[in-house]
Amino acid sequence: MKRIRIPATTANMGPGFDCIGMAFDFYNYIDFEPVDEIGYCELSSDGEAGSIDLSKNNLIYQAYAAVFDYVQKPVAGIKMHFENNVPYSRGLGSSSAALIGGVKVANEVLGNPLSDTELLNVALQFEGHPDNIAPALLGGVVISGLDEEGRVFYRKITPPSNLHCTVIIPDYPLATREAREVLPKELSMKDAVFNIGRMALLVDAMHTGDLQQLALAMDDKLHQPYRMPLIRGMEELIPQAKALGALNVTISGAGPTILLVSDGEKDFSPLADLLKEKGVTAKITALHPVNKGAEMIEG
Amino acid sequence: MKRIRIPATTANMGPGFDCIGMAFDFYNYIDFEPVDEIGYCELSSDGEAGSIDLSKNNLIYQAYAAVFDYVQKPVAGIKMHFENNVPYSRGLGSSSAALIGGVKVANEVLGNPLSDTELLNVALQFEGHPDNIAPALLGGVVISGLDEEGRVFYRKITPPSNLHCTVIIPDYPLATREAREVLPKELSMKDAVFNIGRMALLVDAMHTGDLQQLALAMDDKLHQPYRMPLIRGMEELIPQAKALGALNVTISGAGPTILLVSDGEKDFSPLADLLKEKGVTAKITALHPVNKGAEMIEG
Repeated sequence: MKRIRIPATTANMGPGFDCIGMAFDFYNYIDFEPVDEIGYCELSSDGEAGSIDLSKNNLIYQAYAAVFDYVQKPVAGIKMHFENNVPYSRGLGSSSAALIGGVKVANEVLGNPLSDTELLNVALQFEGHPDNIAPALLGGVVISGLDEEGRVFYRKITPPSNLHCTVIIPDYPLATREAREVLPKELSMKDAVFNIGRMALLVDAMHTGDLQQLALAMDDKLHQPYRMPLIRGMEELIPQAKALGALNVTISGAGPTILLVSDGEKDFSPLADLLKEKGVTAKITALHPVNKGAEMIEG
Repeated sequence: MKRIRIPATTANMGPGFDCIGMAFDFYNYIDFEPVDEIGYCELSSDGEAGSIDLSKNNLIYQAYAAVFDYVQKPVAGIKMHFENNVPYSRGLGSSSAALIGGVKVANEVLGNPLSDTELLNVALQFEGHPDNIAPALLGGVVISGLDEEGRVFYRKITPPSNLHCTVIIPDYPLATREAREVLPKELSMKDAVFNIGRMALLVDAMHTGDLQQLALAMDDKLHQPYRMPLIRGMEELIPQAKALGALNVTISGAGPTILLVSDGEKDFSPLADLLKEKGVTAKITALHPVNKGAEMIEG
Protein backbone atom coordinates (compact mmCIF):
# COMPACT_ATOMS: atom_id res chain seq x y z
CA MET A 1 0.00 0.00 0.00
CA LYS A 2 1.10 3.55 -0.74
CA ARG A 3 -0.06 6.40 1.51
CA ILE A 4 -1.02 9.97 0.71
CA ARG A 5 -2.09 12.74 3.06
CA ILE A 6 -4.19 15.76 2.22
CA PRO A 7 -4.50 18.82 4.46
CA ALA A 8 -7.66 20.46 5.75
CA THR A 9 -8.08 24.00 4.45
CA THR A 10 -9.81 27.22 5.38
CA ALA A 11 -11.20 29.49 2.67
CA ASN A 12 -12.10 33.19 2.50
CA MET A 13 -9.91 34.32 5.45
CA GLY A 14 -12.30 37.23 5.96
CA PRO A 15 -12.41 39.44 2.87
CA GLY A 16 -11.29 36.90 0.27
CA PHE A 17 -14.61 35.28 -0.60
CA ASP A 18 -13.93 32.51 -3.15
CA CYS A 19 -10.41 33.94 -3.70
CA ILE A 20 -8.01 32.70 -1.02
CA GLY A 21 -7.40 29.70 1.21
CA MET A 22 -4.82 28.19 3.55
CA ALA A 23 -3.73 24.66 4.43
CA PHE A 24 -3.55 23.30 8.00
CA ASP A 25 -1.59 20.55 9.76
CA PHE A 26 -4.76 18.47 10.04
CA TYR A 27 -5.00 15.66 7.53
CA ASN A 28 -7.01 13.02 5.77
CA TYR A 29 -5.10 9.94 4.62
CA ILE A 30 -5.62 7.55 1.73
CA ASP A 31 -3.84 4.21 1.52
CA PHE A 32 -4.04 2.89 -2.01
CA GLU A 33 -2.90 0.06 -4.23
CA PRO A 34 -3.41 -0.30 -7.97
CA VAL A 35 -5.24 -3.47 -9.05
CA ASP A 36 -4.52 -5.06 -12.38
CA GLU A 37 -8.13 -5.02 -13.62
CA ILE A 38 -9.63 -2.06 -15.50
CA GLY A 39 -12.49 -0.45 -13.55
CA TYR A 40 -11.95 -2.47 -10.36
CA CYS A 41 -12.88 -0.42 -7.28
CA GLU A 42 -12.58 -1.49 -3.65
CA LEU A 43 -13.08 1.25 -1.05
CA SER A 44 -12.99 1.07 2.73
CA SER A 45 -12.77 3.65 5.48
CA ASP A 46 -12.37 4.46 9.13
CA GLY A 47 -12.10 7.71 11.08
CA GLU A 48 -14.89 10.32 11.22
CA ALA A 49 -16.49 8.84 8.13
CA GLY A 50 -19.52 7.01 9.53
CA SER A 51 -21.99 6.83 6.68
CA ILE A 52 -19.48 7.28 3.87
CA ASP A 53 -20.51 6.05 0.42
CA LEU A 54 -18.08 3.31 -0.61
CA SER A 55 -19.53 2.76 -4.08
CA LYS A 56 -18.17 4.29 -7.27
CA ASN A 57 -20.23 7.38 -6.37
CA ASN A 58 -17.70 8.17 -3.66
CA LEU A 59 -16.30 11.65 -4.31
CA ILE A 60 -12.68 10.55 -3.98
CA TYR A 61 -13.25 7.79 -6.50
CA GLN A 62 -15.13 10.16 -8.81
CA ALA A 63 -12.17 12.55 -8.81
CA TYR A 64 -9.82 9.60 -9.32
CA ALA A 65 -11.82 8.45 -12.35
CA ALA A 66 -12.02 12.00 -13.76
CA VAL A 67 -8.23 12.09 -14.17
CA PHE A 68 -8.41 8.98 -16.38
CA ASP A 69 -11.14 10.67 -18.41
CA TYR A 70 -8.89 13.71 -18.73
CA VAL A 71 -5.97 11.66 -20.08
CA GLN A 72 -8.41 9.55 -22.15
CA LYS A 73 -7.40 6.23 -20.65
CA PRO A 74 -9.54 3.49 -19.10
CA VAL A 75 -9.86 3.85 -15.31
CA ALA A 76 -7.17 1.73 -13.65
CA GLY A 77 -8.35 -0.67 -10.95
CA ILE A 78 -7.73 0.56 -7.40
CA LYS A 79 -8.07 -0.35 -3.73
CA MET A 80 -8.35 2.69 -1.46
CA HIS A 81 -8.67 2.94 2.29
CA PHE A 82 -9.73 6.30 3.69
CA GLU A 83 -8.82 7.78 7.03
CA ASN A 84 -11.03 10.85 7.14
CA ASN A 85 -10.26 13.13 10.05
CA VAL A 86 -11.52 16.42 8.61
CA PRO A 87 -15.19 16.67 9.57
CA TYR A 88 -17.87 17.08 6.87
CA SER A 89 -19.78 20.28 6.16
CA ARG A 90 -17.91 22.31 8.74
CA GLY A 91 -16.03 24.73 6.49
CA LEU A 92 -12.68 22.97 6.71
CA GLY A 93 -12.43 21.78 3.13
CA SER A 94 -13.43 18.12 3.53
CA SER A 95 -14.81 17.91 -0.03
CA SER A 96 -11.71 19.57 -1.41
CA ALA A 97 -9.51 17.14 0.51
CA ALA A 98 -11.52 14.32 -1.07
CA LEU A 99 -11.18 15.75 -4.58
CA ILE A 100 -7.47 16.46 -4.25
CA GLY A 101 -6.94 13.01 -2.70
CA GLY A 102 -8.65 11.39 -5.67
CA VAL A 103 -6.77 13.30 -8.37
CA LYS A 104 -3.41 12.85 -6.62
CA VAL A 105 -3.89 9.08 -6.29
CA ALA A 106 -4.80 8.85 -9.97
CA ASN A 107 -1.80 10.94 -11.00
CA GLU A 108 0.46 8.73 -8.88
CA VAL A 109 -1.00 5.56 -10.43
CA LEU A 110 -0.40 7.05 -13.89
CA GLY A 111 3.22 7.98 -13.11
CA ASN A 112 2.51 11.68 -12.43
CA PRO A 113 1.93 12.97 -15.98
CA LEU A 114 -0.31 15.87 -14.84
CA SER A 115 0.87 19.28 -13.61
CA ASP A 116 -0.62 20.94 -10.53
CA THR A 117 -2.63 23.25 -12.77
CA GLU A 118 -4.07 20.27 -14.65
CA LEU A 119 -4.94 18.50 -11.41
CA LEU A 120 -6.72 21.64 -10.19
CA ASN A 121 -8.67 21.95 -13.42
CA VAL A 122 -9.82 18.34 -13.13
CA ALA A 123 -10.84 18.81 -9.46
CA LEU A 124 -12.57 22.05 -10.40
CA GLN A 125 -15.13 20.09 -12.44
CA PHE A 126 -16.66 19.11 -9.06
CA GLU A 127 -16.35 22.53 -7.35
CA GLY A 128 -17.29 25.97 -8.57
CA HIS A 129 -14.05 27.66 -7.49
CA PRO A 130 -10.54 26.70 -6.46
CA ASP A 131 -10.28 28.45 -3.08
CA ASN A 132 -10.07 25.21 -1.05
CA ILE A 133 -8.71 22.76 -3.61
CA ALA A 134 -5.69 24.96 -4.42
CA PRO A 135 -4.24 25.03 -0.87
CA ALA A 136 -5.24 21.37 -0.37
CA LEU A 137 -3.02 20.52 -3.34
CA LEU A 138 -0.26 23.11 -2.91
CA GLY A 139 -0.17 23.94 0.80
CA GLY A 140 0.47 27.42 2.16
CA VAL A 141 -1.74 30.42 1.54
CA VAL A 142 -3.06 30.37 -2.02
CA ILE A 143 -4.73 33.15 -3.97
CA SER A 144 -6.82 31.57 -6.72
CA GLY A 145 -9.61 32.15 -9.16
CA LEU A 146 -10.74 31.61 -12.71
CA ASP A 147 -9.62 33.58 -15.73
CA GLU A 148 -12.08 34.76 -18.39
CA GLU A 149 -11.85 31.36 -20.11
CA GLY A 150 -12.74 29.53 -16.88
CA ARG A 151 -9.22 28.19 -16.32
CA VAL A 152 -7.78 28.22 -12.84
CA PHE A 153 -5.04 30.66 -11.83
CA TYR A 154 -3.19 30.57 -8.52
CA ARG A 155 -0.35 32.13 -6.56
CA LYS A 156 1.07 30.51 -3.47
CA ILE A 157 2.48 32.46 -0.52
CA THR A 158 4.45 30.82 2.30
CA PRO A 159 2.49 31.55 5.49
CA PRO A 160 4.24 33.73 8.09
CA SER A 161 5.78 31.53 10.82
CA ASN A 162 4.19 33.55 13.64
CA LEU A 163 0.66 33.08 12.27
CA HIS A 164 -1.26 30.81 14.61
CA CYS A 165 -4.77 29.62 14.02
CA THR A 166 -7.43 28.21 16.27
CA VAL A 167 -10.61 26.66 14.97
CA ILE A 168 -13.85 26.34 16.85
CA ILE A 169 -15.68 23.42 15.25
CA PRO A 170 -19.32 23.24 16.32
CA ASP A 171 -20.94 19.80 16.59
CA TYR A 172 -23.52 20.61 13.91
CA PRO A 173 -22.97 20.74 10.14
CA LEU A 174 -23.85 23.62 7.80
CA ALA A 175 -24.26 22.75 4.14
CA THR A 176 -22.30 25.04 1.83
CA ARG A 177 -25.43 25.24 -0.33
CA GLU A 178 -27.45 26.59 2.61
CA ALA A 179 -24.67 29.07 3.52
CA ARG A 180 -24.66 30.29 -0.11
CA GLU A 181 -28.41 30.77 -0.24
CA VAL A 182 -28.33 33.52 2.38
CA LEU A 183 -25.95 35.65 0.31
CA PRO A 184 -27.28 38.58 -1.71
CA LYS A 185 -26.70 38.60 -5.47
CA GLU A 186 -25.76 42.28 -5.41
CA LEU A 187 -23.84 44.43 -2.99
CA SER A 188 -23.06 48.11 -2.59
CA MET A 189 -20.00 49.60 -4.26
CA LYS A 190 -18.98 50.75 -0.79
CA ASP A 191 -18.93 47.22 0.63
CA ALA A 192 -17.04 45.93 -2.41
CA VAL A 193 -14.39 48.65 -1.99
CA PHE A 194 -14.19 47.78 1.71
CA ASN A 195 -13.37 44.15 0.87
CA ILE A 196 -10.92 45.01 -1.92
CA GLY A 197 -8.91 47.20 0.47
CA ARG A 198 -8.90 44.55 3.20
CA MET A 199 -7.88 41.85 0.73
CA ALA A 200 -4.91 44.00 -0.30
CA LEU A 201 -3.88 44.32 3.36
CA LEU A 202 -4.32 40.58 3.91
CA VAL A 203 -1.98 39.67 1.05
CA ASP A 204 0.48 42.29 2.26
CA ALA A 205 0.36 40.80 5.77
CA MET A 206 0.98 37.28 4.41
CA HIS A 207 4.04 38.56 2.54
CA THR A 208 5.47 40.76 5.28
CA GLY A 209 4.46 38.75 8.36
CA ASP A 210 3.17 41.94 9.97
CA LEU A 211 0.21 40.24 11.60
CA GLN A 212 -1.06 43.26 13.54
CA GLN A 213 -2.63 44.29 10.25
CA LEU A 214 -4.95 41.30 10.43
CA ALA A 215 -7.19 43.16 12.87
CA LEU A 216 -8.26 45.25 9.88
CA ALA A 217 -7.26 42.95 7.04
CA MET A 218 -9.56 40.07 7.93
CA ASP A 219 -12.72 42.15 8.22
CA ASP A 220 -15.42 41.39 5.67
CA LYS A 221 -18.69 42.88 4.47
CA LEU A 222 -19.35 40.46 1.64
CA HIS A 223 -20.44 37.18 3.20
CA GLN A 224 -19.97 37.19 6.97
CA PRO A 225 -22.74 39.67 7.85
CA TYR A 226 -25.21 37.32 6.11
CA ARG A 227 -23.81 34.04 7.40
CA MET A 228 -23.11 35.00 10.97
CA PRO A 229 -26.77 34.51 12.03
CA LEU A 230 -26.47 30.87 10.89
CA ILE A 231 -23.60 30.32 13.33
CA ARG A 232 -24.97 30.30 16.84
CA GLY A 233 -22.95 32.25 19.39
CA MET A 234 -20.44 33.67 16.92
CA GLU A 235 -21.37 37.32 17.23
CA GLU A 236 -21.19 37.23 21.03
CA LEU A 237 -17.92 35.32 20.92
CA ILE A 238 -15.97 37.86 18.84
CA PRO A 239 -15.22 40.47 21.56
CA GLN A 240 -14.22 37.75 24.04
CA ALA A 241 -11.95 36.05 21.51
CA LYS A 242 -10.26 39.40 20.82
CA ALA A 243 -9.85 39.99 24.56
CA LEU A 244 -8.08 36.60 24.74
CA GLY A 245 -5.62 37.62 22.01
CA ALA A 246 -7.32 36.92 18.69
CA LEU A 247 -6.28 39.47 16.07
CA ASN A 248 -9.45 38.67 14.20
CA VAL A 249 -12.30 36.18 14.11
CA THR A 250 -13.77 34.96 10.84
CA ILE A 251 -15.94 32.22 9.39
CA SER A 252 -13.88 29.35 8.00
CA GLY A 253 -15.15 28.78 4.47
CA ALA A 254 -18.93 28.60 4.51
CA GLY A 255 -18.89 27.81 8.25
CA PRO A 256 -19.94 26.80 10.81
CA THR A 257 -16.30 26.54 11.92
CA ILE A 258 -14.98 29.80 13.36
CA LEU A 259 -11.35 30.72 12.62
CA LEU A 260 -9.33 32.74 15.12
CA VAL A 261 -5.95 34.12 14.10
CA SER A 262 -3.26 35.21 16.53
CA ASP A 263 0.36 36.27 16.63
CA GLY A 264 1.74 33.19 18.38
CA GLU A 265 -0.32 30.64 20.29
CA LYS A 266 -3.02 31.86 22.70
CA ASP A 267 -5.39 30.02 25.01
CA PHE A 268 -8.93 30.26 23.71
CA SER A 269 -10.36 27.42 25.83
CA PRO A 270 -12.45 29.87 27.93
CA LEU A 271 -14.65 30.40 24.87
CA ALA A 272 -16.10 26.89 25.30
CA ASP A 273 -18.12 28.09 28.30
CA LEU A 274 -19.54 31.03 26.38
CA LEU A 275 -20.66 28.70 23.61
CA LYS A 276 -22.12 26.23 26.11
CA GLU A 277 -24.32 29.05 27.47
CA LYS A 278 -25.63 29.46 23.90
CA GLY A 279 -26.32 25.71 23.76
CA VAL A 280 -23.44 25.04 21.38
CA THR A 281 -21.00 22.19 21.90
CA ALA A 282 -17.79 22.81 19.98
CA LYS A 283 -14.26 21.53 19.76
CA ILE A 284 -11.58 24.22 20.12
CA THR A 285 -8.36 23.16 18.39
CA ALA A 286 -5.09 24.93 17.61
CA LEU A 287 -4.04 24.38 13.99
CA HIS A 288 -0.88 25.51 12.25
CA PRO A 289 -0.64 26.71 8.68
CA VAL A 290 1.49 24.31 6.64
CA ASN A 291 3.44 25.04 3.52
CA LYS A 292 3.11 21.54 2.06
CA GLY A 293 -0.02 20.36 0.34
CA ALA A 294 -1.15 16.85 -0.56
CA GLU A 295 1.84 14.49 -0.69
CA MET A 296 2.96 10.89 -0.62
CA ILE A 297 4.22 9.88 2.82
CA GLU A 298 5.78 6.77 4.32
CA GLY A 299 3.11 4.13 4.89
CA MET B 1 13.51 79.99 -0.26
CA LYS B 2 13.09 76.31 0.60
CA ARG B 3 11.95 73.86 -2.06
CA ILE B 4 9.69 70.83 -1.86
CA ARG B 5 8.70 68.42 -4.60
CA ILE B 6 5.59 66.26 -4.71
CA PRO B 7 5.12 63.34 -7.12
CA ALA B 8 2.26 62.72 -9.49
CA THR B 9 0.31 59.57 -8.64
CA THR B 10 -1.92 57.03 -10.30
CA ALA B 11 -4.80 55.48 -8.39
CA ASN B 12 -6.83 52.25 -8.75
CA MET B 13 -4.23 50.34 -10.82
CA GLY B 14 -7.07 48.29 -12.29
CA PRO B 15 -8.94 46.41 -9.58
CA GLY B 16 -8.07 48.61 -6.59
CA PHE B 17 -10.77 51.25 -6.84
CA ASP B 18 -10.18 53.81 -4.04
CA CYS B 19 -7.72 51.37 -2.41
CA ILE B 20 -4.27 51.64 -4.01
CA GLY B 21 -2.02 54.15 -5.70
CA MET B 22 1.54 54.61 -6.91
CA ALA B 23 3.94 57.58 -7.15
CA PHE B 24 5.76 58.59 -10.35
CA ASP B 25 8.97 60.47 -11.17
CA PHE B 26 6.92 63.43 -12.40
CA TYR B 27 6.75 66.33 -9.97
CA ASN B 28 5.18 69.55 -8.85
CA TYR B 29 7.46 71.93 -6.94
CA ILE B 30 6.76 74.51 -4.27
CA ASP B 31 9.31 77.13 -3.25
CA PHE B 32 8.33 78.64 0.07
CA GLU B 33 9.48 81.08 2.70
CA PRO B 34 7.83 81.80 6.04
CA VAL B 35 6.88 85.44 6.62
CA ASP B 36 6.85 86.91 10.09
CA GLU B 37 3.23 88.12 9.99
CA ILE B 38 0.33 85.90 11.05
CA GLY B 39 -2.06 85.17 8.17
CA TYR B 40 0.17 86.73 5.47
CA CYS B 41 -0.22 84.91 2.16
CA GLU B 42 1.63 85.60 -1.10
CA LEU B 43 1.20 83.03 -3.86
CA SER B 44 2.65 82.93 -7.36
CA SER B 45 2.97 80.27 -10.02
CA ASP B 46 4.35 79.15 -13.34
CA GLY B 47 4.24 75.89 -15.25
CA GLU B 48 1.01 74.29 -16.54
CA ALA B 49 -1.03 76.33 -14.09
CA GLY B 50 -2.65 78.96 -16.32
CA SER B 51 -5.76 80.09 -14.50
CA ILE B 52 -4.64 79.05 -11.02
CA ASP B 53 -6.36 80.76 -8.08
CA LEU B 54 -3.68 82.61 -6.11
CA SER B 55 -6.00 83.81 -3.33
CA LYS B 56 -6.39 82.11 0.05
CA ASN B 57 -8.87 79.80 -1.71
CA ASN B 58 -5.95 78.08 -3.42
CA LEU B 59 -6.06 74.37 -2.54
CA ILE B 60 -2.39 74.25 -1.53
CA TYR B 61 -2.89 77.21 0.82
CA GLN B 62 -6.12 75.67 2.17
CA ALA B 63 -4.26 72.47 3.04
CA TYR B 64 -1.42 74.56 4.52
CA ALA B 65 -3.86 76.45 6.73
CA ALA B 66 -5.66 73.23 7.78
CA VAL B 67 -2.48 71.97 9.45
CA PHE B 68 -2.43 75.09 11.66
CA ASP B 69 -6.08 74.48 12.52
CA TYR B 70 -5.16 70.91 13.41
CA VAL B 71 -2.41 71.99 15.80
CA GLN B 72 -4.59 74.87 17.03
CA LYS B 73 -2.13 77.61 16.17
CA PRO B 74 -2.62 80.80 14.15
CA VAL B 75 -1.70 80.36 10.49
CA ALA B 76 1.93 81.43 9.98
CA GLY B 77 2.59 83.91 7.17
CA ILE B 78 3.96 82.34 3.98
CA LYS B 79 5.22 83.09 0.50
CA MET B 80 4.79 80.18 -1.93
CA HIS B 81 5.72 79.84 -5.56
CA PHE B 82 4.20 76.92 -7.45
CA GLU B 83 5.69 75.02 -10.35
CA ASN B 84 2.81 72.81 -11.39
CA ASN B 85 3.76 70.24 -14.00
CA VAL B 86 1.12 67.62 -13.28
CA PRO B 87 -1.87 68.48 -15.46
CA TYR B 88 -5.29 69.09 -13.88
CA SER B 89 -8.25 66.70 -14.08
CA ARG B 90 -6.33 64.05 -15.97
CA GLY B 91 -6.24 61.28 -13.34
CA LEU B 92 -2.63 61.90 -12.28
CA GLY B 93 -3.27 63.15 -8.77
CA SER B 94 -2.86 66.90 -9.27
CA SER B 95 -5.25 67.73 -6.40
CA SER B 96 -3.52 65.25 -4.14
CA ALA B 97 -0.14 66.75 -5.04
CA ALA B 98 -1.57 70.16 -4.08
CA LEU B 99 -2.93 68.89 -0.76
CA ILE B 100 0.24 67.03 0.16
CA GLY B 101 2.32 70.04 -0.87
CA GLY B 102 0.28 72.28 1.42
CA VAL B 103 0.43 70.03 4.47
CA LYS B 104 4.13 69.28 4.01
CA VAL B 105 5.02 72.97 3.76
CA ALA B 106 3.01 73.70 6.91
CA ASN B 107 4.65 70.83 8.78
CA GLU B 108 8.08 72.08 7.72
CA VAL B 109 7.27 75.64 8.86
CA LEU B 110 6.12 74.25 12.22
CA GLY B 111 9.29 72.16 12.69
CA ASN B 112 7.73 68.84 11.58
CA PRO B 113 5.59 68.01 14.61
CA LEU B 114 3.07 65.92 12.61
CA SER B 115 3.45 62.25 11.65
CA ASP B 116 2.69 60.97 8.16
CA THR B 117 -0.60 59.56 9.41
CA GLU B 118 -1.59 62.93 10.85
CA LEU B 119 -0.67 64.71 7.61
CA LEU B 120 -2.80 62.21 5.68
CA ASN B 121 -5.74 62.72 8.00
CA VAL B 122 -5.51 66.51 7.56
CA ALA B 123 -5.30 66.19 3.76
CA LEU B 124 -8.17 63.71 3.84
CA GLN B 125 -10.53 66.49 4.95
CA PHE B 126 -10.38 67.72 1.34
CA GLU B 127 -10.60 64.28 -0.35
CA GLY B 128 -12.95 61.39 0.26
CA HIS B 129 -10.24 58.71 0.26
CA PRO B 130 -6.49 58.45 0.56
CA ASP B 131 -5.64 56.49 -2.62
CA ASN B 132 -3.74 59.39 -4.25
CA ILE B 133 -2.63 61.42 -1.23
CA ALA B 134 -0.96 58.42 0.43
CA PRO B 135 1.52 57.68 -2.40
CA ALA B 136 1.99 61.45 -3.00
CA LEU B 137 3.20 61.72 0.61
CA LEU B 138 4.94 58.36 1.03
CA GLY B 139 6.07 57.34 -2.46
CA GLY B 140 5.99 53.76 -3.72
CA VAL B 141 2.87 51.66 -4.09
CA VAL B 142 0.49 52.32 -1.22
CA ILE B 143 -2.55 50.33 -0.13
CA SER B 144 -4.83 52.65 1.81
CA GLY B 145 -8.32 53.13 3.10
CA LEU B 146 -10.38 54.21 6.07
CA ASP B 147 -11.07 52.16 9.17
CA GLU B 148 -14.51 51.96 10.75
CA GLU B 149 -13.84 55.23 12.63
CA GLY B 150 -12.93 57.05 9.40
CA ARG B 151 -9.21 57.19 10.18
CA VAL B 152 -6.75 56.50 7.41
CA PHE B 153 -4.76 53.27 7.28
CA TYR B 154 -1.95 52.56 4.81
CA ARG B 155 0.74 50.07 3.85
CA LYS B 156 3.58 50.97 1.57
CA ILE B 157 5.24 48.49 -0.82
CA THR B 158 8.48 49.25 -2.69
CA PRO B 159 7.63 49.01 -6.40
CA PRO B 160 9.38 46.23 -8.36
CA SER B 161 12.37 47.68 -10.25
CA ASN B 162 11.30 46.10 -13.57
CA LEU B 163 7.86 47.76 -13.47
CA HIS B 164 7.70 50.38 -16.19
CA CYS B 165 4.76 52.66 -16.79
CA THR B 166 3.65 54.70 -19.73
CA VAL B 167 0.88 57.24 -19.52
CA ILE B 168 -1.24 58.47 -22.38
CA ILE B 169 -2.49 61.90 -21.35
CA PRO B 170 -5.28 63.19 -23.61
CA ASP B 171 -5.51 66.92 -24.20
CA TYR B 172 -8.99 67.16 -22.64
CA PRO B 173 -9.82 67.06 -18.92
CA LEU B 174 -12.33 64.74 -17.21
CA ALA B 175 -13.68 65.90 -13.87
CA THR B 176 -13.48 63.25 -11.15
CA ARG B 177 -17.05 64.16 -10.22
CA GLU B 178 -18.24 63.37 -13.75
CA ALA B 179 -16.28 60.10 -13.79
CA ARG B 180 -17.90 59.14 -10.48
CA GLU B 181 -21.42 59.88 -11.67
CA VAL B 182 -21.31 57.09 -14.26
CA LEU B 183 -20.58 54.45 -11.62
CA PRO B 184 -23.40 52.22 -10.37
CA LYS B 185 -24.18 52.24 -6.64
CA GLU B 186 -24.50 48.44 -6.60
CA LEU B 187 -22.66 45.65 -8.33
CA SER B 188 -23.00 41.90 -8.64
CA MET B 189 -21.36 39.62 -6.11
CA LYS B 190 -19.61 38.02 -9.07
CA ASP B 191 -17.95 41.25 -10.18
CA ALA B 192 -16.92 42.05 -6.60
CA VAL B 193 -15.30 38.62 -6.24
CA PHE B 194 -13.57 39.17 -9.59
CA ASN B 195 -11.97 42.38 -8.31
CA ILE B 196 -11.06 40.95 -4.90
CA GLY B 197 -9.14 38.10 -6.57
CA ARG B 198 -7.35 40.44 -8.97
CA MET B 199 -6.46 42.81 -6.15
CA ALA B 200 -4.88 39.91 -4.27
CA LEU B 201 -2.79 39.06 -7.35
CA LEU B 202 -1.81 42.71 -7.80
CA VAL B 203 -0.44 43.00 -4.26
CA ASP B 204 1.32 39.66 -4.70
CA ALA B 205 2.91 40.92 -7.94
CA MET B 206 4.08 44.13 -6.25
CA HIS B 207 5.73 42.05 -3.50
CA THR B 208 7.25 39.36 -5.70
CA GLY B 209 8.06 41.42 -8.81
CA ASP B 210 6.47 38.71 -10.96
CA LEU B 211 4.96 41.16 -13.42
CA GLN B 212 3.57 38.58 -15.85
CA GLN B 213 0.71 38.30 -13.38
CA LEU B 214 -0.33 41.86 -14.18
CA ALA B 215 -2.05 40.65 -17.35
CA LEU B 216 -4.69 39.19 -15.03
CA ALA B 217 -4.08 41.21 -11.89
CA MET B 218 -4.88 44.63 -13.35
CA ASP B 219 -8.23 43.64 -14.83
CA ASP B 220 -11.25 45.36 -13.34
CA LYS B 221 -15.04 45.06 -13.43
CA LEU B 222 -15.83 47.73 -10.88
CA HIS B 223 -15.22 51.09 -12.51
CA GLN B 224 -13.50 50.70 -15.90
CA PRO B 225 -16.43 49.19 -17.83
CA TYR B 226 -18.46 52.30 -16.91
CA ARG B 227 -15.75 54.88 -17.44
CA MET B 228 -14.20 53.55 -20.61
CA PRO B 229 -16.90 55.10 -22.84
CA LEU B 230 -15.86 58.52 -21.44
CA ILE B 231 -12.31 57.99 -22.70
CA ARG B 232 -12.31 58.26 -26.46
CA GLY B 233 -10.27 55.63 -28.25
CA MET B 234 -9.35 53.62 -25.16
CA GLU B 235 -11.24 50.45 -25.98
CA GLU B 236 -9.73 50.27 -29.47
CA LEU B 237 -6.27 51.04 -28.11
CA ILE B 238 -6.08 48.12 -25.65
CA PRO B 239 -5.31 45.26 -28.09
CA GLN B 240 -2.69 47.37 -29.91
CA ALA B 241 -1.03 48.41 -26.66
CA LYS B 242 -0.85 44.75 -25.63
CA ALA B 243 0.63 43.85 -29.00
CA LEU B 244 3.33 46.48 -28.36
CA GLY B 245 4.24 44.89 -25.03
CA ALA B 246 1.82 46.27 -22.46
CA LEU B 247 1.03 43.68 -19.79
CA ASN B 248 -2.16 45.56 -19.09
CA VAL B 249 -3.93 48.83 -19.85
CA THR B 250 -5.98 50.64 -17.24
CA ILE B 251 -7.52 54.00 -16.48
CA SER B 252 -5.26 56.16 -14.28
CA GLY B 253 -7.44 57.29 -11.38
CA ALA B 254 -10.71 58.64 -12.73
CA GLY B 255 -9.15 59.20 -16.17
CA PRO B 256 -8.85 60.32 -18.88
CA THR B 257 -5.16 59.34 -18.64
CA ILE B 258 -4.54 55.75 -19.71
CA LEU B 259 -1.89 53.78 -17.82
CA LEU B 260 0.14 51.08 -19.58
CA VAL B 261 2.33 48.76 -17.53
CA SER B 262 5.19 46.74 -18.94
CA ASP B 263 8.11 44.59 -17.84
CA GLY B 264 10.90 46.96 -18.83
CA GLU B 265 10.56 49.92 -21.19
CA LYS B 266 8.60 49.48 -24.45
CA ASP B 267 7.90 51.84 -27.31
CA PHE B 268 4.25 52.80 -27.35
CA SER B 269 4.61 55.82 -29.65
CA PRO B 270 2.70 54.06 -32.51
CA LEU B 271 -0.45 54.43 -30.40
CA ALA B 272 -0.47 58.18 -31.11
CA ASP B 273 -1.61 57.50 -34.70
CA LEU B 274 -4.45 55.29 -33.56
CA LEU B 275 -5.66 58.01 -31.20
CA LYS B 276 -5.31 60.66 -33.89
CA GLU B 277 -7.66 58.61 -36.09
CA LYS B 278 -10.20 58.85 -33.25
CA GLY B 279 -9.66 62.60 -33.12
CA VAL B 280 -7.72 62.49 -29.86
CA THR B 281 -4.48 64.38 -29.34
CA ALA B 282 -2.51 62.88 -26.48
CA LYS B 283 0.94 62.97 -24.94
CA ILE B 284 2.56 59.56 -24.53
CA THR B 285 5.14 59.63 -21.75
CA ALA B 286 7.21 56.99 -19.99
CA LEU B 287 7.06 57.38 -16.21
CA HIS B 288 8.88 55.42 -13.54
CA PRO B 289 7.48 54.41 -10.20
CA VAL B 290 9.43 56.12 -7.40
CA ASN B 291 9.83 54.98 -3.84
CA LYS B 292 10.16 58.49 -2.38
CA GLY B 293 7.17 60.70 -1.79
CA ALA B 294 6.98 64.43 -1.12
CA GLU B 295 10.30 65.73 0.16
CA MET B 296 12.47 68.77 0.71
CA ILE B 297 15.10 69.13 -2.00
CA GLU B 298 17.97 71.48 -2.71
CA GLY B 299 16.67 74.84 -4.05
